[in-house]
Amino acid sequence: MTTPAQVQAMDEADALAGFRERFHLPRGLVYLDGNSLGPLPIRTQERIARVAAQEWGDGLINSWESAGWIDAPSRIGDKIARLIGAGSGEVLVADSTSINLFKCLAAALAMQPGRTVMLSESGNFPTDLYMMQGLAGLTGTRYEVVPADRLLGRLDESIAVLTLTHVNYRSAAIHDLAAITRAAHDAGALVAWDLSHSVGSVPVDLESAGVDFAVGCGYKFLNGGPGAPAFVYVARRHQALAPAVLSGWLGHREPFAFDETYQPDPGIGRFRCGTPPILSLMALEEGVDLLLEADQAALRRKQSALSRLFIELVDSHCEGLGFTLASPREDERRGGHVSLRHPHGFAIMQALKARGVIGDFRGPDILRFGIAPLYLSFGDMYEAVTRLVNVMREAEWRRPEFNRRASVT
Amino acid sequence: MTTPAQVQAMDEADALAGFRERFHLPRGLVYLDGNSLGPLPIRTQERIARVAAQEWGDGLINSWESAGWIDAPSRIGDKIARLIGAGSGEVLVADSTSINLFKCLAAALAMQPGRTVMLSESGNFPTDLYMMQGLAGLTGTRYEVVPADRLLGRLDESIAVLTLTHVNYRSAAIHDLAAITRAAHDAGALVAWDLSHSVGSVPVDLESAGVDFAVGCGYKFLNGGPGAPAFVYVARRHQALAPAVLSGWLGHREPFAFDETYQPDPGIGRFRCGTPPILSLMALEEGVDLLLEADQAALRRKQSALSRLFIELVDSHCEGLGFTLASPREDERRGGHVSLRHPHGFAIMQALKARGVIGDFRGPDILRFGIAPLYLSFGDMYEAVTRLVNVMREAEWRRPEFNRRASVT
Repeated sequence: MTTPAQVQAMDEADALAGFRERFHLPRGLVYLDGNSLGPLPIRTQERIARVAAQEWGDGLINSWESAGWIDAPSRIGDKIARLIGAGSGEVLVADSTSINLFKCLAAALAMQPGRTVMLSESGNFPTDLYMMQGLAGLTGTRYEVVPADRLLGRLDESIAVLTLTHVNYRSAAIHDLAAITRAAHDAGALVAWDLSHSVGSVPVDLESAGVDFAVGCGYKFLNGGPGAPAFVYVARRHQALAPAVLSGWLGHREPFAFDETYQPDPGIGRFRCGTPPILSLMALEEGVDLLLEADQAALRRKQSALSRLFIELVDSHCEGLGFTLASPREDERRGGHVSLRHPHGFAIMQALKARGVIGDFRGPDILRFGIAPLYLSFGDMYEAVTRLVNVMREAEWRRPEFNRRASVT
Repeated sequence: MTTPAQVQAMDEADALAGFRERFHLPRGLVYLDGNSLGPLPIRTQERIARVAAQEWGDGLINSWESAGWIDAPSRIGDKIARLIGAGSGEVLVADSTSINLFKCLAAALAMQPGRTVMLSESGNFPTDLYMMQGLAGLTGTRYEVVPADRLLGRLDESIAVLTLTHVNYRSAAIHDLAAITRAAHDAGALVAWDLSHSVGSVPVDLESAGVDFAVGCGYKFLNGGPGAPAFVYVARRHQALAPAVLSGWLGHREPFAFDETYQPDPGIGRFRCGTPPILSLMALEEGVDLLLEADQAALRRKQSALSRLFIELVDSHCEGLGFTLASPREDERRGGHVSLRHPHGFAIMQALKARGVIGDFRGPDILRFGIAPLYLSFGDMYEAVTRLVNVMREAEWRRPEFNRRASVT
């Protein structure tokens, strides 16, 4: 059983520990919800103030060029590309994850004449399933949702595109992206991966896996701020063939010619649509820049070590308290959070928040704890489990105020 | 001919003059591009800093509820509703104008079985035409673009939806929204109005005109910041019938139930899609709040008076310099900017910018001057025309540096 002294030694040996002070983190809080909303980098505050006062305030309309606003979606996309094994010109920041997935699925359907089914798995993040549903209704195509163990068997000549989330939002289980992509390709289907819980958290190598499309979220492990714009990846080989169905003016090959007929940008630029929200976009860039300062392999090692410690402490200190591990125990199969099941999970999470440990709850019984190695310490793991034990021992979670279901997050 | 003393008297009599100091406007600059990007309200700077440091930084994930983030799209939508003659629950802030138009057109097509054509006019803002093009390609429907004078004649039983921009982005000519809506309805078509150049600028009364759908832009006269989120209006009578084809999780009737099947929100909420960019969203709210402090009828009267003065000064001071008025001369037919034509318009606008008068250029020969009565003075009109005369008299626009086409805006 790891002792407090050993935990302290782990923190002292942590070469990444210095990143913590680059974040605005309330004192005393153990923030284990960075898989839902990453915390504020100090530098982002300064950047936002500068974008507002100098770029918008002083520069006004000229800042579209002089402050690099117009190029920001591809500039930041190129930075994110480095985190997911993509090349320059293959990633673009735009819109939301949901809308970017719509773009990819619609393009994939158009590229696969004669194939009319979109396939996904039950338990995928709901918005991905919902976007398929809306697109199917609009286009007269179909979508199917099957359990994970039936996915590969379902791949036949009817499947236009398979879309999955790489790291499951509930369990943190990691799909074998390369193997599934290969199986889909073998059946003639395209793939669109949702990297929302992967980017900035687990290794992704889109190019070596030959992935066709991908999307992902800016506000989780990229620390881009609430509702930060999302990103979209289109493999270079597909870019000229993938139609932009959300064909807004900024995806035109020459937007400021104000042509009346849409001519798509030859590259990833066609996946732009309308004007991007600059304040939120620039906040995202700071988050990505900060993440890129760290060694990604070292971050992943630390994340695994933090998660292992958390699981070990729960195993040893919470025995008999009703928790079971809902995440894979093997490091390489587990993404950026650890989930526990408990029949009173909702109330326990509320009580834990009142003690300053912020995780979140996903019904019916999942407590999620985000493990972001850029700003979390081994001491945080110890503190979180200690407070969890106190919540359970003192039965705090039984209090009425912790049993009211009002939380939206 | 209006004299400087008379101009000064106009400013002294201007009951709205106090609003100017509520904006961050660089000294000496005459900013006539608020129809493209409105300037920074002072209060917005403070709001953004607070949203970053306190709501994101301190409040973290809890701010979705405690800081009102989750309700912001409908809360701000209700405020915008007051500017366009809509009711509470009929307007939502979300995504971009382009994407919101896609939502409306797709819903309109679905609501009009047997009608398969989307109709618009040549000269409409390109993104509106492009979005029709993308949607038509995706759904196997058609779109037609005809000159304005043939629009009403084209309305027949094939037309599912007519989409037009209320105030033309080049000429500022105002369409008769009520009459065109009536004509479309008489032909059994639905209408979707783009209010990007109307909202916060000219009177709009969607309810009395019986408009079906509308969209509009947050970063022009609403002063919401670069790329501010856009809004969408769906008449209450259509809301339960209009399918949300961009069916993202936040449009679900119960997003945090994480159902696997999309069940749309019963109202305007179904037109939400993904997570909104909070920093940009909150900046928009400040812009809207500031605008709502002013008397809208008084603003419109001042805008007309400013524009009349500008036109009169151009008529009298620029005679023989090659300019022609590209906007309607009648106040009630002219929106929030004044456009001039000149064969050397591009270079003249560049030279004028170098003299601190910011307007913009739209090819092949249009100089646009945005007239935003919330922060512009009669003296600004005089100053702008004086500098324009100097640019022409000294032939500054012939300089090579003003003839390089690099501008994206």
